[in-house]
Amino acid sequence: MFSDLYDVVVVGGGHAGAEAAAAAANMGSKTLLVTMNLQTIGQMSCNPAMGGIAKGQIVREIDALGGYSGIVSDKSAIQFKMLNKSKGPAMWSPRSQNDRMRFAEEWRLALEGIPNLDFYQEMVSGLIISEGRISGVRTSLGIEIKAKSVVLTNGTFLNGLIHIGEKQFGGGRAGERAATGITEELVSLGFESGRMKTGTPPRVDGRSLDYSVMIPQPGDENPEKFSYLNTPVLSRQRDCFMTHTSSHVHELLREGFDRSPMFNGRIKSIGPRYCPSIEDKINRFADKDSHQIFVEPEGWDTVEVYVNGFSTSLPEDVQFKALRSVKGFENVKFFRPGYAIEYDYFPPTQLKHTLETKLVENLYFAGQINGTTGYEEAASQGLMAGINAHLKINEKEAFILNRDEAYIGVLIDDLITKGTEEPYRMFTSRAEYRTLLRQDNADLRLTPKSYELGLAGEERLKRMEDKLSKSESFLNFFRETSFDPSEMNPILERVDSSLVKQSDKMFKVFSRPQVSMDHMLELEEVATFVEENGLDREVLEQTEIQVKYSGYIEKEKSNADKLQRLENVRIPDGFDYSKLKSLSFEAREKLSSIRPVTIAQASRVSGVNPSDISVLLVHLGR
Amino acid sequence: MFSDLYDVVVVGGGHAGAEAAAAAANMGSKTLLVTMNLQTIGQMSCNPAMGGIAKGQIVREIDALGGYSGIVSDKSAIQFKMLNKSKGPAMWSPRSQNDRMRFAEEWRLALEGIPNLDFYQEMVSGLIISEGRISGVRTSLGIEIKAKSVVLTNGTFLNGLIHIGEKQFGGGRAGERAATGITEELVSLGFESGRMKTGTPPRVDGRSLDYSVMIPQPGDENPEKFSYLNTPVLSRQRDCFMTHTSSHVHELLREGFDRSPMFNGRIKSIGPRYCPSIEDKINRFADKDSHQIFVEPEGWDTVEVYVNGFSTSLPEDVQFKALRSVKGFENVKFFRPGYAIEYDYFPPTQLKHTLETKLVENLYFAGQINGTTGYEEAASQGLMAGINAHLKINEKEAFILNRDEAYIGVLIDDLITKGTEEPYRMFTSRAEYRTLLRQDNADLRLTPKSYELGLAGEERLKRMEDKLSKSESFLNFFRETSFDPSEMNPILERVDSSLVKQSDKMFKVFSRPQVSMDHMLELEEVATFVEENGLDREVLEQTEIQVKYSGYIEKEKSNADKLQRLENVRIPDGFDYSKLKSLSFEAREKLSSIRPVTIAQASRVSGVNPSDISVLLVHLGR
Repeated sequence: MFSDLYDVVVVGGGHAGAEAAAAAANMGSKTLLVTMNLQTIGQMSCNPAMGGIAKGQIVREIDALGGYSGIVSDKSAIQFKMLNKSKGPAMWSPRSQNDRMRFAEEWRLALEGIPNLDFYQEMVSGLIISEGRISGVRTSLGIEIKAKSVVLTNGTFLNGLIHIGEKQFGGGRAGERAATGITEELVSLGFESGRMKTGTPPRVDGRSLDYSVMIPQPGDENPEKFSYLNTPVLSRQRDCFMTHTSSHVHELLREGFDRSPMFNGRIKSIGPRYCPSIEDKINRFADKDSHQIFVEPEGWDTVEVYVNGFSTSLPEDVQFKALRSVKGFENVKFFRPGYAIEYDYFPPTQLKHTLETKLVENLYFAGQINGTTGYEEAASQGLMAGINAHLKINEKEAFILNRDEAYIGVLIDDLITKGTEEPYRMFTSRAEYRTLLRQDNADLRLTPKSYELGLAGEERLKRMEDKLSKSESFLNFFRETSFDPSEMNPILERVDSSLVKQSDKMFKVFSRPQVSMDHMLELEEVATFVEENGLDREVLEQTEIQVKYSGYIEKEKSNADKLQRLENVRIPDGFDYSKLKSLSFEAREKLSSIRPVTIAQASRVSGVNPSDISVLLVHLGR
Repeated sequence: MFSDLYDVVVVGGGHAGAEAAAAAANMGSKTLLVTMNLQTIGQMSCNPAMGGIAKGQIVREIDALGGYSGIVSDKSAIQFKMLNKSKGPAMWSPRSQNDRMRFAEEWRLALEGIPNLDFYQEMVSGLIISEGRISGVRTSLGIEIKAKSVVLTNGTFLNGLIHIGEKQFGGGRAGERAATGITEELVSLGFESGRMKTGTPPRVDGRSLDYSVMIPQPGDENPEKFSYLNTPVLSRQRDCFMTHTSSHVHELLREGFDRSPMFNGRIKSIGPRYCPSIEDKINRFADKDSHQIFVEPEGWDTVEVYVNGFSTSLPEDVQFKALRSVKGFENVKFFRPGYAIEYDYFPPTQLKHTLETKLVENLYFAGQINGTTGYEEAASQGLMAGINAHLKINEKEAFILNRDEAYIGVLIDDLITKGTEEPYRMFTSRAEYRTLLRQDNADLRLTPKSYELGLAGEERLKRMEDKLSKSESFLNFFRETSFDPSEMNPILERVDSSLVKQSDKMFKVFSRPQVSMDHMLELEEVATFVEENGLDREVLEQTEIQVKYSGYIEKEKSNADKLQRLENVRIPDGFDYSKLKSLSFEAREKLSSIRPVTIAQASRVSGVNPSDISVLLVHLGR
C-alpha cells in the first residue's frame, strides 16, 4: 500500500507533529503524517489558549520561521491580550484564547493545503531500523511505510495512563486510546525512557455558572495578533472571567487527599512545576487560603468552559463538591472531570541539536516525548525537527538556532544539554539575552534565515524587509532631526520631565523614560513623517523599542558575541574525555554522556565547572 | 456528583442519541446526554450524506415533528438533490451531501442551545435496574447517575470488533474504543442479543484523483432543503463524481477473497443487504463486470473524499491495489482503509411500539442497537424514544405513529412486529400507503400532532397551517375557476393533449398527465392568483400533487381507514394465546412472543396467517 519511499514520516498530529509535517513538506520533502485519528489533528488537549509569557514569543518565532501556529491561532482566536505591556518590551508576551473546534479545523485545512503532504490514519506501533538508521515505521495493521527519516511526536500517548482518584485506565487523552509498542522497541535499542505526568482541569457547562459574581477578563482594546502575515485582527472578542478558591474549598479538596493518586503514591512521575494541580498548590502553599481560577470559554458559540487553575486528579466527587463551593460555581455541571495522565518520555540528552537521536540516525523526537510541556514548546520542536529532517536527507547543513537568536534555541539547547526530569516549560528567565529575544523582532531575527532555508516565503521576507527599512529610516529620522524647544517643552512639562533649554536631536529627548512614541507623535514633524512614509503600528513599536532599549540591546549583543566565541570553539566528534584526567570525575562522566558540540555548550552541562572549561580550552589549544 | 435525579438519560451522541436527548429536553424533561467523547457528537461515521430514497422522507418527518436532523443537514449541506423527480411525488426523495465537520458542529451547538439538556463525557458501562424498572446508569468510573428513564443508543460500539482482512481489533469506530459491559448486563436480565455487521469504504485524498475522467454529479439547479423552517437554501454547491469498477478491478479484489473475513468465516453476522461491500457485490452478481462508484467530498474545503460503493473489509493492500485500477483512481492515496465492524444488537421484537423494552420498564432502545442501519432510521427512532420516554414518566399517553401516518410508523412497527435478522433499512416499498407518506406533506401529516405533544413549536405550526390554507384555497381556485378554451388550447396543443371545445373547470384539464403546474401558470388568471396570494414553491408543489394524485390519495386513504378498523381492535394485555387451540402452533408461539397490541399488528407478524386472524377476531367478539 505504501510502496513509495517517503522522505519524512511524522508520527502524531498534535502541535509538534503538525508543524513538523508542514515544515518538511513545504521545504520539498515528500512527507506523510500518520495519526491515530485524522479527526483530532491540532487538538488543544488542555487549555484553549496559545502564547503567554515566553510562549507567545515562541509562537512569533514559529511564525517568523514559516510555521503555522501563529496563523492558526489568529484565525481561531476569540480573545487577544498582550501580557506584561507595563514592563519592558522584552517581557511583552502575546496570548490568545481560541475556539477549540476552529483551531483544529484551521490546522487540518492548512495541512491539507500543502501539496507535498500526505495523510494516513492508523496507530504506528513499531519502527523499522537497520544498522543504526531508521528506514520506516510499522502500523498496528502491520503495514510498513518506508521513509528516509521519521519524526516521533507522540505527546502523552505512549503507554498513557489516566488517573482520576483511585481509578486508572489506559488512554492517550480523555476518550482516546493510548499508543503501545514504540517505547518498548526504543528501549530495546538502548534508549533510556522515563515517565512524566501532566493533568487537566474539569470541563464544565458555562450555562451553570454565575458570571455576575466573577471578575470579567476582557481582551485588549486594540487586539494585536501572532502572525507577521496578513491574518485577521479580531473585531469582537469573548471575555474570560476570574474567580477564587477559598479556605472552605481547600478543606473540601483536602478531604480527598487520601484518595489522591498524587499523594498516595500511585502516581510516581513528576508533573509540570509551573502548572500544578490544585491539590498540589494547596499542599505546597498551605498558608495561602485562596488561588485564582480563570474561566475560559472553549469557543465562540459553545457553552463548554475550561476551568484554568483547577487541574486535578482527585476523585471526581471531590472535584465536584469542591468546585461547587467556588464563587460562581455553586450550580456547576461537569462535562467531564479533571484527570492526571502518566506517559513515557525520552530524556532529551539523547538528542542532537537538530533533535535527531544520537542512537538512531534520521530518527527525530519532538514535543512531549522530549519531556516538555506546552503547545508552543511542542510546536517549535516539531518545526525544528521537520526542518532538520529535510535538511539532513538532502545533505544540507543542519539548522540550529543559538541561544541569542531565539527562545527556540534556548529551549532545544536546554533540553539536549541539561536534560529535564520534570516537564520543561519555557520562561523568559531561561534566556540569557531576553532583551534580544523579543516578540516584536522575531521576524527580523529569524525570517531571513528561514527564507534562506527555503521555508519562509517571499511575502514573509518582503514584509520583514519593509518593516526593517521603515523602522531604520524612522530611527535615523529621530537621530538626525532636531526638535523645537517651544514645541517640546509643553510635552515634557506634562510628563514631569525636566525642560530643555535649547534644541537638540529628537533621539535624545525620546530616550527619556517618561517620553513615549505617543508623545513624540504630537510633534508635527514626526506625525508628518509617519503619514508620508505610511508607518504602521509595528514599525512605530519597533522604532520606539530601538530608541528606548538601545543601551540594553547593545550590551546584550556584545555579551552574546563574547559567548559566541566559545560557541565557535568546537569539540571534535568522539572526543575522549576519559583521558583528560585533570577534568573532575563528574565533568568527565557528564561530558561523555551529553557530548556537547562546543565549549559553550559544555559550560552549560550541569556539574561542569569553570575550571573544567579551562582545562578543555587549554587542551583544545586556546 | 450526579445527586439530582434526571428525567431522561440518553446514552450515546450519534443521530439517535442526539435526537432523543433533544426531544426529551425540549418537551420539558431534565435530560442528560452521556457519551464517550463529547467531541464526536453527531458524527457522520459513514457517508457524508443525509436522506435519499425513503430516508429523505424520514428526515422530513423528523423535521415536521420538531427534530433537528433536517435543520442540521440544511445548515451543513454542500449539495442538494431531489431524487426520483421524474417519478410520482410519492417517490420524490430529498438527499443532501454534507460537510462532515460542519454537521457535527451544528449538532453540538444545537444541543447546547437546549436549556434542559446537560452533557457528560464518559463510557456508560452498566445499568441500574431494580424490580424490572430502570433507575439509572453506571459509568466506567463507577459514577451512578439516577434517572427515571434511560434511552440506549449505542450504535456500533457495544463490543464493537473491527475487521480488515485477517486482522481484527476492538473498536466502536475507526480510531475509537468499543463499549463494554452493557450487553452482558442486559443478557443476564433475560434479553436476547445478536451480532450484526456493517462496513465502510476507504477515505482517500481528493488531490490524488483525476476527476477529469469521471462523470460530474452536480446538485439540483434549484436546490430545495429538508427543514420546513427557515433554514438557508444553498447558493453554491460542490459536485460529486461517478466512476466505475471494471472486470480487472474485480479480478484484483478476488485475489484477496481467501483473506476476506466475509468469506473465510471470521465474520459470522449479517451485513446490510442494500449496502453491500464491493466483495459481496462481485460475489453475488458475478455476471456484472462493473459497479458504480460515487466520489463524495467530505466537506466544503477538505480534500478528504468518501468512496461510496467501495465498502470493503478486504486486506488493505488488496483494497489499495484494486482501487488504483479504478478509472480516475490510478494515483489514489488512502487516508484510511475501509473496514467491517461487528457489534451487538438486540432483536427489536423485545420492544413496545414506544421503543420501551418489554422486559425493563422505562428503558428504551433506539438506532443500530435495534438492528437498523442508516442515519435517518437511527435519528427517527431516537426522536420517538425521546418523546415517549418523556410522555411515560409524565403519565401521558404514548405517542405512536401508524403505518399510514409516517415512514417512522412503518419503521417501528416493522421492527417490533417482524423483528430483523439483518440490518434494517427503510424503502418506499415497505410502506403500504406510500402515496400518503410523501416528503412534501410530512408537515401536514405530523406537525399538528407534535405541536399537541408540546414538541413542535408555534412557528412550525403556523408555517404548516399557512401552507395548508394556501394550498387548499389554490385547489379550490382550480376547482371553481373555469378556463377560456382560446387560452387553454394552445397549451394543450403544445403538450400533445386533446383540445377542449368548451369552457370547463381548470381542475379537470389540470388533472391530465401532460399538463403541469408550469403550464397552468401560463394562464393569466392563475398567475395573478399566485402573485396576489403570495404562494411559494411549496404551496404550488403541494397543490399540483393534490390535483394530480387526488385519485390515488383518496384510494389509499380509504384502504388505510379500512385497516384502521383492525388497528382499533385491541388485544388485551397478557392475552393467553396458548389456550386458543384453534390457532396454528406457529401463530400461538409467535404471538406469545411478539405480543401485538392490535389485530392489525398481529396480522403482520410473520407466520401468522389470515385464518389465525379470523380465529382471533371471533374470539375477541368481532
